[in-house]
Amino acid sequence: MGEISLEELQLAARNHGMPLEALRYDVTPVGLHYLLIHYDIPPVDAGSWALSLGGLVANPMKLTLDELRARPAVELTVTMECAGNGRARLTPHVVSQPWLNEAVGTARWRGVALAALLEEASPLDDAAEVVFTGLDRGLEKEIEQQYERSLRLDDTRDAVLAYEMNGAALPPQHGFPLRLVVPGWYGMTSVKWLTSIEVIDRPFEGYQQAEAYRFRLDEDDDGRPLTRMAPRALMIPPGIPEFSSRARTVARGDVRLEGRAWSGHAPITGVEVSDDGGETWADADLGPDEGRWAWRGWGHLWRPKRTGYHELCCRGRDVAGNVQPLEPQWNVGGYSNNAVQRVPVTVTE
Amino acid sequence: MGEISLEELQLAARNHGMPLEALRYDVTPVGLHYLLIHYDIPPVDAGSWALSLGGLVANPMKLTLDELRARPAVELTVTMECAGNGRARLTPHVVSQPWLNEAVGTARWRGVALAALLEEASPLDDAAEVVFTGLDRGLEKEIEQQYERSLRLDDTRDAVLAYEMNGAALPPQHGFPLRLVVPGWYGMTSVKWLTSIEVIDRPFEGYQQAEAYRFRLDEDDDGRPLTRMAPRALMIPPGIPEFSSRARTVARGDVRLEGRAWSGHAPITGVEVSDDGGETWADADLGPDEGRWAWRGWGHLWRPKRTGYHELCCRGRDVAGNVQPLEPQWNVGGYSNNAVQRVPVTVTE
Repeated sequence: MGEISLEELQLAARNHGMPLEALRYDVTPVGLHYLLIHYDIPPVDAGSWALSLGGLVANPMKLTLDELRARPAVELTVTMECAGNGRARLTPHVVSQPWLNEAVGTARWRGVALAALLEEASPLDDAAEVVFTGLDRGLEKEIEQQYERSLRLDDTRDAVLAYEMNGAALPPQHGFPLRLVVPGWYGMTSVKWLTSIEVIDRPFEGYQQAEAYRFRLDEDDDGRPLTRMAPRALMIPPGIPEFSSRARTVARGDVRLEGRAWSGHAPITGVEVSDDGGETWADADLGPDEGRWAWRGWGHLWRPKRTGYHELCCRGRDVAGNVQPLEPQWNVGGYSNNAVQRVPVTVTE
Repeated sequence: MGEISLEELQLAARNHGMPLEALRYDVTPVGLHYLLIHYDIPPVDAGSWALSLGGLVANPMKLTLDELRARPAVELTVTMECAGNGRARLTPHVVSQPWLNEAVGTARWRGVALAALLEEASPLDDAAEVVFTGLDRGLEKEIEQQYERSLRLDDTRDAVLAYEMNGAALPPQHGFPLRLVVPGWYGMTSVKWLTSIEVIDRPFEGYQQAEAYRFRLDEDDDGRPLTRMAPRALMIPPGIPEFSSRARTVARGDVRLEGRAWSGHAPITGVEVSDDGGETWADADLGPDEGRWAWRGWGHLWRPKRTGYHELCCRGRDVAGNVQPLEPQWNVGGYSNNAVQRVPVTVTE
């Protein structure tokens, strides 16, 4: 891996991952869930804030937070991962937020079902997509913009307009007072600090849809849009770390390896573990199914046969047959690198 | 500034700063407060956890969380900064957690006054220092250790054993179920995941006291221990950012610059602002005094005289006469770099 520049460090100092020992929590405590903020966290006065729902609808609406809270609520436990997770492990180096493996988290999101609100607004016959606009504003590739993403109407079914995270009001950094949460999709879809929802009759061509967040093999490739999360399993690094290198030491004996796995495409059907860098694999035990959109726990009793250096790996697969690759597929934006996690550990007597 | 290695990036991905726009909050929302975790966040079962208070005391104690909560509570608003804040801006490069300017936060800590608990335990006549041990365990310079720091008895007066942060139970990453909070001191003093407090009759020689966290001018220098926070003022970067460079653009007109300033040595008595890289300075207005241990707000109306590039700076000074330097003083550990913040901005028509 190449080195990281000052500019990338500025991003890494703001946008943090989830320390991997936090895989021990079913629901990630606030402050440990990953965060990716394109511009600045905007200041929002909840009293004067309102959501506009308009465009190609029969009943355009303007809704205060109290009006949203007065509607029937839904709560979903959702695992969310950044599309750029794994970027810093690509060669050649891709310059952007330098994620290693840890851009993930699981939260309980409570709010209004998007589909119910859209039904109330009643989209017109030519409605095709829904555009979500956040209050966060900045420049990207010289284009001044508010953060905006769209979904095809067909893809809005499971989404929530969330005003609570883990039983409390959304924290500022997660989109206070309201954010979109689209289960199963990479996090760029779940627009924070929502200010408007607009129904349109054609594919949305905004920067974050048409330029960014596309899987492109080279500069001439138009690529395909990033959508659902590819499968990934992660383990809690066992043993104890050295402070500056994070290198792990494990005392010889039975070691319970544990972690979580998820896929936005289909339920997780298996997790495998290797202690020799991916040469041989053993099946892990899956924990209980905590719901379609939540990660699945797994565990495996590891008995190291010798002391010294080992490279632990894990990989997940889903019901649709998607499995994690041993090596990443390089791409221009550094997206969707779900190559297996590798955890070097030294076993001591 | 030199580039950052994979090892430092691993630290930066775990240990996050406070995005500087969060200077707008008197009290930093949980999840935005800076975090520096030497090893891993330890799992703690609050039901079986208890704090030992022993060593050179007449009445050694073992206290459950309920027993601590049953005692009179104190609540303090405390600004806490990492001793390594500013490290990544030193040349030559110092390898460790690569902080820029943002390793700070302010919280409301509620718990038991340390002095009251020590009085209850009744230190013996030869008591000199108090050693605080956390449950977090790892290796540092080949020494396996739990995180430990000490305070001289004289320095324990203002400290709190905190079980709440911002009105809720401590989050795991801030030391659940109990942490030490020492107002005015750099954060390394405020031991998280406390398991024991021991009174001793001599200076503590543990790694984090005798080896780390010392201000050493070169490898032959024994140096002096880091203690209280040097003064620092920070501003909310004005205007809007470009995503990857974080470069700021401000529309010409009146710009209200705002930020916070603090010093562990004495109250803040002034903040100055420059728009020409520190050639000329103007006094900022100070906001209300929010208590001895909390940062102080400041503001300044800036009227750019021209468009184009400007380097904004701010610097604070305290009642004891400490003032921020224009250039940092290099040191082996990369500590206590309180050189003035520099915020490049481009003013547009």
